[in-house]
Amino acid sequence: MDRVEQARRLAALRGELAQRELAAFVVPRADEHQHSYLPAASERLAWISGFTGSWGTAVIGRDRAALFVDGRYTLQARDEAPDWEHHHLVTAPPETWLGRMLGAGDCVGYDPRVHTSDGVRTLAAAIERAGASLRPVDNLIDAIWTDRPAPPRAPVELYPEAIAGASRADKRRRIAEALTADRLDALVISAPDNLAWLLNLRGGDLPMTPVALGFAIVRGDATVAVFMDGAKLPPEVRAALAAEAKSEGKSDGDGAGAPAAVTLAEPAALAGALAGLAGRRVRVDHATGSDWIVRTLRAAGATPDVGADPCTLAKACKTAAELAAIRAAHVRDGVAVVRLLAWLAGITPADETEWTVALRAAALRAEGEHHRGPSFRTIAGAGPNGALPHYALHEATARRLADDDVLLIDSGAQYLDGTTDVTRTVILGLGLPTPEIRRRYTQVLQGHLALGNARFPDDTTGAQLDLLARQPLWADGVDYDHGTGHGVGCFLAVHEGPHGIAKRPNAIALRPGMILSNEPGYYKAGAYGIRIENLVVVAKLDPQPAGAEHTTLGFETLTLAPYDRRLIDVALLAPGERATVDAYHARVRDTLTPLLDRSSDPAFDPAAAAFLAAATAPL
Amino acid sequence: MDRVEQARRLAALRGELAQRELAAFVVPRADEHQHSYLPAASERLAWISGFTGSWGTAVIGRDRAALFVDGRYTLQARDEAPDWEHHHLVTAPPETWLGRMLGAGDCVGYDPRVHTSDGVRTLAAAIERAGASLRPVDNLIDAIWTDRPAPPRAPVELYPEAIAGASRADKRRRIAEALTADRLDALVISAPDNLAWLLNLRGGDLPMTPVALGFAIVRGDATVAVFMDGAKLPPEVRAALAAEAKSEGKSDGDGAGAPAAVTLAEPAALAGALAGLAGRRVRVDHATGSDWIVRTLRAAGATPDVGADPCTLAKACKTAAELAAIRAAHVRDGVAVVRLLAWLAGITPADETEWTVALRAAALRAEGEHHRGPSFRTIAGAGPNGALPHYALHEATARRLADDDVLLIDSGAQYLDGTTDVTRTVILGLGLPTPEIRRRYTQVLQGHLALGNARFPDDTTGAQLDLLARQPLWADGVDYDHGTGHGVGCFLAVHEGPHGIAKRPNAIALRPGMILSNEPGYYKAGAYGIRIENLVVVAKLDPQPAGAEHTTLGFETLTLAPYDRRLIDVALLAPGERATVDAYHARVRDTLTPLLDRSSDPAFDPAAAAFLAAATAPL
Repeated sequence: MDRVEQARRLAALRGELAQRELAAFVVPRADEHQHSYLPAASERLAWISGFTGSWGTAVIGRDRAALFVDGRYTLQARDEAPDWEHHHLVTAPPETWLGRMLGAGDCVGYDPRVHTSDGVRTLAAAIERAGASLRPVDNLIDAIWTDRPAPPRAPVELYPEAIAGASRADKRRRIAEALTADRLDALVISAPDNLAWLLNLRGGDLPMTPVALGFAIVRGDATVAVFMDGAKLPPEVRAALAAEAKSEGKSDGDGAGAPAAVTLAEPAALAGALAGLAGRRVRVDHATGSDWIVRTLRAAGATPDVGADPCTLAKACKTAAELAAIRAAHVRDGVAVVRLLAWLAGITPADETEWTVALRAAALRAEGEHHRGPSFRTIAGAGPNGALPHYALHEATARRLADDDVLLIDSGAQYLDGTTDVTRTVILGLGLPTPEIRRRYTQVLQGHLALGNARFPDDTTGAQLDLLARQPLWADGVDYDHGTGHGVGCFLAVHEGPHGIAKRPNAIALRPGMILSNEPGYYKAGAYGIRIENLVVVAKLDPQPAGAEHTTLGFETLTLAPYDRRLIDVALLAPGERATVDAYHARVRDTLTPLLDRSSDPAFDPAAAAFLAAATAPL
Repeated sequence: MDRVEQARRLAALRGELAQRELAAFVVPRADEHQHSYLPAASERLAWISGFTGSWGTAVIGRDRAALFVDGRYTLQARDEAPDWEHHHLVTAPPETWLGRMLGAGDCVGYDPRVHTSDGVRTLAAAIERAGASLRPVDNLIDAIWTDRPAPPRAPVELYPEAIAGASRADKRRRIAEALTADRLDALVISAPDNLAWLLNLRGGDLPMTPVALGFAIVRGDATVAVFMDGAKLPPEVRAALAAEAKSEGKSDGDGAGAPAAVTLAEPAALAGALAGLAGRRVRVDHATGSDWIVRTLRAAGATPDVGADPCTLAKACKTAAELAAIRAAHVRDGVAVVRLLAWLAGITPADETEWTVALRAAALRAEGEHHRGPSFRTIAGAGPNGALPHYALHEATARRLADDDVLLIDSGAQYLDGTTDVTRTVILGLGLPTPEIRRRYTQVLQGHLALGNARFPDDTTGAQLDLLARQPLWADGVDYDHGTGHGVGCFLAVHEGPHGIAKRPNAIALRPGMILSNEPGYYKAGAYGIRIENLVVVAKLDPQPAGAEHTTLGFETLTLAPYDRRLIDVALLAPGERATVDAYHARVRDTLTPLLDRSSDPAFDPAAAAFLAAATAPL
């Protein structure tokens, strides 16, 4: 977008401000579902400001316009929105700026559909301290964005119960029981992955995350009212949902007499349905439920209860069937990653760029069964680009590789039977790392191994374990400035809650079946980046330790790909660490070699098999 | 107290309830200062209920009387208050019981001087949900406790500035700056150890903690108004406080014209002084400030700001002078502990009891210079008694020792130059522990060593480190049900905040100069208990790690006493752990031996020196 067009859009928005007598309007990068990916129709922040990063907020006032982003995006925001004021989203947030900018009696507009109620409370407090007020309005961007794209209408598909491991009816009953136990009458689902999980559906409305946008209201009797564009629902999906009976086994005869347990309506019907909850206590998710839902419930005489959507925790604890599927997906993903690493070991670095590496990763994965595309944008960062933990790779600006570059590759895929996310860091060409690089790689590996080997009681949170991944780095006075692990879905979002491993306290205890990434790193600005990431699943130790007095949990590693031996300083490893690497490498080799060295196999790649044998030899 | 007397007291209290038209009265084990030790005059809970434990609450209603204690005290409470209802203080707290017991329109009385405002808010919410109300009243116990002891009036003494390392004026200015930075006009100090720290005073009003009870108001101009019984203040203390000038260097001539920076008044003057803060923003400590202070300020038109008293954090970060003094106190304490351990190694167990061990510990410490008494009640738990982490030792019930008993001794002292707290676990007699006991002792030791060796960035909380002490136990499916470390004062309270090491999140980062205990344990009910405790001080590593990118902190161990070699399974130790034990033992030996084997030294004890040589030989 050129500056003239940007000025035109700002002027149009200010026309709307004037017409509504507003002093400012707030534009977060969010839609009705608060998911990190947005459909094109909801990219309002990018449309008004030009800023295309994944997190930010704009505030447009009568005379001033400010963009708030975090440290990852400082440079990009200044580049993309050169005529705006720039502030830090966390340390100098919009509410602080508004508090200073507003005069008494001013009124600030916001679209309650794209803010959470907690977010609105924070905004309102600062605005009211300035003697001004916050007013819900229709989205001003929509009024002036004349060529706004249509909402996505990708067809919905049924997700196989054999993979999900639980029927729609099982899940509905389980959530209804959770609501009743919390003395709630109903739940509003806004999170598209929770909706997909509950009804064993998948969709294609968002990039990289196979979900359909929509809402649902679950009631204590296990009925589900879905609010979704009917154009997305093929007949087989409608039929499957219609076949859900309110009380299985109680229907008289052919089932036609049983009341429907899952009903379908257009999104426009949601407001009326919320109003129908008058007198009820209704859970609205604190992280994904909108202020509009809370306001609509309250206006109707319902009692909104802002808390956790119980689907989030239920979805996080994978079933045995999901885990079996996910393990199979990781074998296929491992084949692709090993072939990529084998290819990298053979290239002349100067013949390739970060971009061609990412293309190769995608092409190799696409050969795998059930592959549906990437689970996030591949990060391939060579040399100094590797030191940017959220490096955005573009073809035009991709770095050409060079001998002895450290290359960090963070990539993942969506398979029908699982979502993958793996990071490996390798040294290119002759592979002669500096002693510092080997030391740091080894320390990152030691943290990764210590976390992977953790054993802990069943009331332990990820925050309690975070230290394990950092301790070897901390001993040298270095660290990494991101979390250690995020939850991962099953053919769903590559980032999901409610659990995680980070310094920040998290009240959610790790439970069997939860998938997490284990991804410590080290980043030397201007020089190189190192990250090692496996996905792991929380599992009850079997057998339990002799004499155990509580249930002891640990992690099973899902990801199958070798670490780079050339970057490991074996002298720094304790015997147990060395044994852990050797055992893991043996498992990777034994699992993947049969798929690479059989000419009958579609992944037949004898060079990769030879690479793998060398890469996984005992340290 | 016999049951007849208990019934008489309850009847008298119910007479007061009737006269005031109250449905119930709440009696916490707390006074105006919310310190864990109380003077006899404030033991209202024990007087009305008979319960003598350190934590509990009674609620006396018109027909029912309930006592609430935690798991430590369940049996003791039933024994001491046989005619009361009993409930769990945490899982079935008084507010829940009141919420069920009260009728609409009922009124519950409480003494706002002995509750925090946060505590009152919790009580009030439950009571109001029942349609009843909570009313501040004068303490009903005081109205009927005719032979209530007088408040303590121990003389106050000046604490040497050479030990404190900072003058009263320095501290006053520092706290005033903290208030100004937080946009506060004043601070009310309720915590007696904060008052003692601020004014470099010590007292004798409480058992085991050398403080004088009183209050203070600190203002932004660094003046301090003290509210304390004048009978406690000897002339030299009055003179020293009077000599504090409001603005040093600005007085004209002999100082008589300078306004007083520290003023003294009787406690009864506090209400008037609070009323004098009308229009001001006044910090009241969330943990030690009473609801009465908050209410009095609010009634006067001041704005109470319930938060942290900044003295708590300032006091926690010891000065270099304090640390030098504390190190010296730990040498003396180490001499006493080594002599105790040497004596234990030579006794015939059946000749002694837990009580005689505690007496011996006290007697040996009393020989040390600057000794002022115990810092808490000694725990000496043999065999199954060791498995009770808060075992209360009494002469009449003390267990006779036996060969091969595991004996846990947790004791500490107040010295003018420091407060100590050390736990050692030893095996008695021939010393033939079972393999399980050796394994558990070694695991507790490994956790203790891992925590002691931790290196961490300067924004790390104790909660982030807690895992280190538990990991060896967790690997075997066992744990301990208490925190890992508490703060410790300098000739002040043996438990002080705001920092700590525990599973529970704590927002306070560890800072250089903070003293903590490092005390993992393992308790096998009915069999034995193990705990190993050293005091450590947070210190900046010197030198910092080569290439460090942040300030790296670690711990310096203060406590000097050998671990029990006979309980260590050396085969379980990693080489680094073995080296850590050997290096620590060498330091203990080298530091203490000269004090034990010189006949000119008051602690001359050649048998203890010989014991120490054997106990600290390399593993």
